[in-house]
Amino acid sequence: MRTQVAIVGAGPAGLLLGHLLRAEGVDVVVVERASADYVLGRIRAGVLERTTTDLMDRIGLGERMHREGLVHSGFHLADGERLIHIDIEALTGRQVMVYGQTELTRDLMDAAPGRGLQIVYEASDVCLHDVESDAPYISYHKGGVAHRIDAQFICGCDGYHGPSRQAVPALVATAYEKNYPFGWLGILADVPPCSQELIYANHERGFALASMRSGSRSRYYVQVPLDDRIENWPDERLWDELAIRLGPEAAAHIVRGPALEKSIAPLRSFVFEPMRHGRVMLAGDSAHIVPPTGAKGLNLAASDVHYLSEALSRYFRSNDNDAVAAYSGRALARVWKAERFSWQLTRLLHRFPDSDAFDRKMQIAELDYIASSVAARTAIAENYVGLPL
Amino acid sequence: MRTQVAIVGAGPAGLLLGHLLRAEGVDVVVVERASADYVLGRIRAGVLERTTTDLMDRIGLGERMHREGLVHSGFHLADGERLIHIDIEALTGRQVMVYGQTELTRDLMDAAPGRGLQIVYEASDVCLHDVESDAPYISYHKGGVAHRIDAQFICGCDGYHGPSRQAVPALVATAYEKNYPFGWLGILADVPPCSQELIYANHERGFALASMRSGSRSRYYVQVPLDDRIENWPDERLWDELAIRLGPEAAAHIVRGPALEKSIAPLRSFVFEPMRHGRVMLAGDSAHIVPPTGAKGLNLAASDVHYLSEALSRYFRSNDNDAVAAYSGRALARVWKAERFSWQLTRLLHRFPDSDAFDRKMQIAELDYIASSVAARTAIAENYVGLPL
Repeated sequence: MRTQVAIVGAGPAGLLLGHLLRAEGVDVVVVERASADYVLGRIRAGVLERTTTDLMDRIGLGERMHREGLVHSGFHLADGERLIHIDIEALTGRQVMVYGQTELTRDLMDAAPGRGLQIVYEASDVCLHDVESDAPYISYHKGGVAHRIDAQFICGCDGYHGPSRQAVPALVATAYEKNYPFGWLGILADVPPCSQELIYANHERGFALASMRSGSRSRYYVQVPLDDRIENWPDERLWDELAIRLGPEAAAHIVRGPALEKSIAPLRSFVFEPMRHGRVMLAGDSAHIVPPTGAKGLNLAASDVHYLSEALSRYFRSNDNDAVAAYSGRALARVWKAERFSWQLTRLLHRFPDSDAFDRKMQIAELDYIASSVAARTAIAENYVGLPL
Repeated sequence: MRTQVAIVGAGPAGLLLGHLLRAEGVDVVVVERASADYVLGRIRAGVLERTTTDLMDRIGLGERMHREGLVHSGFHLADGERLIHIDIEALTGRQVMVYGQTELTRDLMDAAPGRGLQIVYEASDVCLHDVESDAPYISYHKGGVAHRIDAQFICGCDGYHGPSRQAVPALVATAYEKNYPFGWLGILADVPPCSQELIYANHERGFALASMRSGSRSRYYVQVPLDDRIENWPDERLWDELAIRLGPEAAAHIVRGPALEKSIAPLRSFVFEPMRHGRVMLAGDSAHIVPPTGAKGLNLAASDVHYLSEALSRYFRSNDNDAVAAYSGRALARVWKAERFSWQLTRLLHRFPDSDAFDRKMQIAELDYIASSVAARTAIAENYVGLPL
């Protein structure tokens, strides 16, 4: 098979990139290791920046998102007792959209056939070849048969564990990484959320987050030690802990229900530079990971593919190599800012095993300062809604 | 001897408090371990917040400060190459005043006799007694003779090493402390400053600060390891290092000259709670230390004595015990915010021995973000000029 752009990975980054390129008339094939059902079964983030919803609107696929998504004009920080309201709309003029990554992926997936966006699911052993040449190609197996896709560019939207990043030689690359000494235990339940807006709580016992996917589906998290196990957290213990950490105001409105899903995820900061090597371009989790605090992961993938689709469109429209060469620098400038925000919010809100009484006082002083300063709240809000592209 | 308020320590905190109380008609005696010349010989901070200069004006002692001090409406952050201007006047409507602590102390000292502010210098073995009673007193020796001052309140303005904090029983107190793994090597020289405004530089080789006391007297600092020694830093090596760390723009304007003074100071964050116990009230360095990054030390002492003079004036005017009881809480609320700012700026700008490549990238990302965001610069500026009393 031959195409202009081969995309590895049919998650939201790969599909959004595919649609953006199709809208510019570029030929695209997406190759995905898993099945469509598996992709849709992954529980992920749910808060979309305006930059992300704008992209959905630009390709004409925002209709269900606007109908079913929840527009949020603020969120709360909490310190055990008090709620500190971050009125993002008043502070920045922008809102965010609560709409599950699963739903966004479904919209992109459903629209693919009609837009001529070809997706090959269950492609195993995906390998990238000759990425330093003008004629790179992908090989894979499907149904026991070997396949090959020749392309002008290969875009790696295949996440942290995918093969694309490996195609960049170690000699030209630098990886920056920070692993946090705790994880998030998440629970998904079909109960109304305890708060109309998200609550990010810093409690002496550890971080907690009250979030939601819809008016009837809640998503909660508590910080747990890295070696903790799901078996230690029967539903009732988890609800009890949430009630303590989120504080009395939220606790009064928690509706308990059985877990649809419960899992522990580690927290990691990771950036891989450069995001382009020869004809392979990385986007989203293949190039960088943020801790989930602040909900930047999916939104960062969206801004990557915005820059990437612009660069590739210009290449195919006017043979503009400069735009391709500039992609990594443009994307990384925004990536590092989002990494900084996610890291800052993670440090502000979590209990670190090696922190002392002074560190704890610094967290409280920072929350006090945020509560008292419009400038501090604006700085948080402008990062939360997404810095300008 | 009998007085209403005995103040331990004739540094700027003690003298400013003495003058504020005298202006309200309160009887005060200040007791100081060192000689007047020794006190004036100590090289200290030089950037005054508006809250501090307002206090000098309020007691009518701001005349020389306004004549000789340098009004600064901004400062710079630097990252080796670039200067990031923090236009504090445009961002907050306020300025700061560069006027050496030594000069301010001299003004307060010179005005003392005319205001009936008695200062006993060279008082050794100062001890506080019966601070939990309504009749506390101070004992000391001077010229081999034992003395005693009976007072209604004892104010400890005697710094980190003074005796006042020791009068608060360990059982009721908590000390929070962070020691930084580096020090500042400072040089004072009679040369014009390299920049009209201060430059706080984060360089790969470590922090540097270009500051001044006047248009013809410069004060520079470089971060050095805690176990470094003055002997390792002949003047020329220090000037060379400053030229590298401050970046090419500043380096072009550095005028070198012989060191009038050169010393290494450790950096520490320290807060002692509560700041009142019975009839002993702590203010300034006796209760808290900030690292010098951001120049909060003297200014925090000034806001302490503002709160403290208000509380004591109300006590003597209307026997208001509530104001005395509220002092510690009022002062500490501002102390913790300034501790946070000093700690944040210290972490942003210094090279930490245990930091890794990701931490370094976070510093650079934060400087990039500050350069790009009005909200971030406003947050820094409002702390730099001093949060509201």
